[in-house]
Amino acid sequence: MEKIEPQNVKGFRDLLPGYARRKNEIISAIRKVYESYGFLPVETPGLEYLEILLGEYGEENTKQIFRFKSPEEQEVALRFDLTVPLARIVAQYNDLPKPFKRYQVGSVWRADKPDPGRFREFTQFDVDVVGTSSQLAEVEVIGAVVTALRKIGAGEFVVNVNSRKVLNAVVRYSGIPSDRAKDVFRVLDKLNKIGMQNTELELTRGRRDASGDFIPGLGLTDANVGKIKDYLALPKGERRKVLDEISALLGTESCDDLKNLDGFLNILGLGSDVVSFDPTIARGLDYYTGPVFEVNLKDKPQFGSVAGGGRYDNLVRRFTENDLPAVGFSIGVDRLLAALGDGEPNAPFADVVVTIMDRDKLDEYLKIASELRDAGVRTDLYLGQEKGLRKQLQYADRVSARFAIILGSNEIQKGVVTVKDLKAGESVSQNAAEREEWLKKTREIQREIPRKELVQEILKLLS
Amino acid sequence: MEKIEPQNVKGFRDLLPGYARRKNEIISAIRKVYESYGFLPVETPGLEYLEILLGEYGEENTKQIFRFKSPEEQEVALRFDLTVPLARIVAQYNDLPKPFKRYQVGSVWRADKPDPGRFREFTQFDVDVVGTSSQLAEVEVIGAVVTALRKIGAGEFVVNVNSRKVLNAVVRYSGIPSDRAKDVFRVLDKLNKIGMQNTELELTRGRRDASGDFIPGLGLTDANVGKIKDYLALPKGERRKVLDEISALLGTESCDDLKNLDGFLNILGLGSDVVSFDPTIARGLDYYTGPVFEVNLKDKPQFGSVAGGGRYDNLVRRFTENDLPAVGFSIGVDRLLAALGDGEPNAPFADVVVTIMDRDKLDEYLKIASELRDAGVRTDLYLGQEKGLRKQLQYADRVSARFAIILGSNEIQKGVVTVKDLKAGESVSQNAAEREEWLKKTREIQREIPRKELVQEILKLLS
Repeated sequence: MEKIEPQNVKGFRDLLPGYARRKNEIISAIRKVYESYGFLPVETPGLEYLEILLGEYGEENTKQIFRFKSPEEQEVALRFDLTVPLARIVAQYNDLPKPFKRYQVGSVWRADKPDPGRFREFTQFDVDVVGTSSQLAEVEVIGAVVTALRKIGAGEFVVNVNSRKVLNAVVRYSGIPSDRAKDVFRVLDKLNKIGMQNTELELTRGRRDASGDFIPGLGLTDANVGKIKDYLALPKGERRKVLDEISALLGTESCDDLKNLDGFLNILGLGSDVVSFDPTIARGLDYYTGPVFEVNLKDKPQFGSVAGGGRYDNLVRRFTENDLPAVGFSIGVDRLLAALGDGEPNAPFADVVVTIMDRDKLDEYLKIASELRDAGVRTDLYLGQEKGLRKQLQYADRVSARFAIILGSNEIQKGVVTVKDLKAGESVSQNAAEREEWLKKTREIQREIPRKELVQEILKLLS
Repeated sequence: MEKIEPQNVKGFRDLLPGYARRKNEIISAIRKVYESYGFLPVETPGLEYLEILLGEYGEENTKQIFRFKSPEEQEVALRFDLTVPLARIVAQYNDLPKPFKRYQVGSVWRADKPDPGRFREFTQFDVDVVGTSSQLAEVEVIGAVVTALRKIGAGEFVVNVNSRKVLNAVVRYSGIPSDRAKDVFRVLDKLNKIGMQNTELELTRGRRDASGDFIPGLGLTDANVGKIKDYLALPKGERRKVLDEISALLGTESCDDLKNLDGFLNILGLGSDVVSFDPTIARGLDYYTGPVFEVNLKDKPQFGSVAGGGRYDNLVRRFTENDLPAVGFSIGVDRLLAALGDGEPNAPFADVVVTIMDRDKLDEYLKIASELRDAGVRTDLYLGQEKGLRKQLQYADRVSARFAIILGSNEIQKGVVTVKDLKAGESVSQNAAEREEWLKKTREIQREIPRKELVQEILKLLS
């Protein structure tokens, strides 16, 4: 039989157990925080009609939408984010609470250039408030994300905030026609990634990227760019100071929403060390209309922003006459996970592996596993065909089990069970000879426990 | 601006908060059980190369694969199940534990005829053991699914079991060439859905379905079908009895694996009331090679099987020379959820809604919300622009909150907070007038609590 090569589609990947477990933990922790804030869960399908998605992400992004034909020959697409589906939902269902506070976690797909560490399917965890222009909503989503990141131990991070209203004022100040504003924002969004020189080229005559592809420029004049550079040179960080500088350069009304936000953040006790104002933040999506945010990890700037969001007051108008201003914040779960690492690689997947020493005593092994599981002990029963103890202990080591349970004719006669502590030796090498050595050593780290006391003894050992 | 109609792609749907929450609960509960059995989590992408998926589902199913071109113009497809991706994974990564016990939960996509209650994207929760032919593995996956279904309160259910080895013997016994076997199994799989008469037609000359489409028949003779009917007439249920009858009709070696399984199930204390043998079970997928299972809810037969699985010893051979026999069991989460209902529709999404009576006191409201959340109380802060209490209480009712917290100038002067119990009245009508009445009533069900004791009092009220 001819073999098919087992491989992922270009730009896609699998999450193996260590990584998948850590991802589950992070998602559970974020979910718990968002529920403590009163956000409601929603799920939308992976597929949307293409027309639902078109027109709000910007030209470059729109090219990255995975699109194809449905069985009914209609144009459909894999969802590009969770925000546009939310806008569809609030227009589609009339009986949702208003304001609607929802969270959603799920895959989104983007046919981006695949890069090491950059994938075409990734998980977003979004929290949004739809149906209010009160900036308390900004504070709620920022507060929820800050609390969630603290809860999962993301280390030191900062939420960098700017406003599309400030950026619109920059476009005016720079003498650029307002219909070019969104193009300018998309270029500015790349500043921290590509640097000032490349940004200037993309604002003016264009440039070649690392792979030699030509990125056309916006055709702005040097005078336009000079003004933009005045603005970008403003200090960032301390909120009051940034507000003063922006007001001085662009007029005080340009940062009304940031001033208001600053007040709420102060009430909440979130200082400039946690939420700072940063004139260089723009975000790349077209639909933002007010404050925009992104989160950077202080110790791991190389991972870029691990969360982003902002206010998008006009998105729902594509679908309905109802006025439903909205604001949201999305955590990039995979990027966060990449930055934080996959946790303890040797954290046990099972507390106990029940080895099988005597195939005539299967009833005993099944009963032991059953009893331990009923008591809440994560119990793996060895299911392979190896008869020897050594191979079975290697398996137990491979799943990082804490204990192995051994019950042979010897033990049965004495009415006991041997419990071997597999972690007492610790830091098991991947090297075969050292592992062999270690397995020998573990022979000493074992005790006999009366069969009847097994469950309670294991619970005691694990506590 | 022209409006785009907010709608789902044909055959797809959204899960709104009540339903989405119940689904999260079910998935968490199943995950916990599977982890207690020592199964390891894995995630695979939504997309696979088309060639990975082709050839193992059977002709009819293969037509239902959503397929399209990747940006590199390669043929790709949305995953049709989680089993073939698992087979790919165990062939692709050499360093997984062997046997590999894994669980995965995620969407699968099938371009089935959309029907009310039948969707093109649904969630499967799979548990599999790869790399052992020991039938202990069958017992582990059956045990895990039984425990999970009990844990989520699925009510009375039965795991119906048969074996492809028995069915192969039926094909031989009926004088049908063995290369037609899989076609026969796919027709038999529909027996409980379409009835004996339609099954007979599909085995012979074909039939028209309800929508008038012609389903071609297999062209079997009446003699062939007569023999099949002998077999299908065998009793089902009590395992020993079914084994005896099958042995008598088809020879004792046809049910060796079922006999072995029966022994293990007895050891585990799973009687014929929970796991029964049923000669009519076939399963529709081509890749099964040994025992096959499905779960039916006793009180809700109309939902069909809510879980299915079986042994598939040759699937991994498509990808690698390594011999990796396997067995798995998949819970259809959406079908289960449809059968169980979406739980308590009025279960609170928030414990408390903090209303906003005085916009100058926002700092107080934000602080109260913060304190309650820190104490683990699910706290929703009212984010809308309504100033009146009545509208805010309607919102609190809409998210099924248990308590509303009210703090006006009156309360502030007295150093207290008013806590209104929104559930004391209970069963709030959707009718506007009755709701009005209820809101009036709740005015009585409230108490003043000293501001300083608020958190501990709320915790007490919730406990």
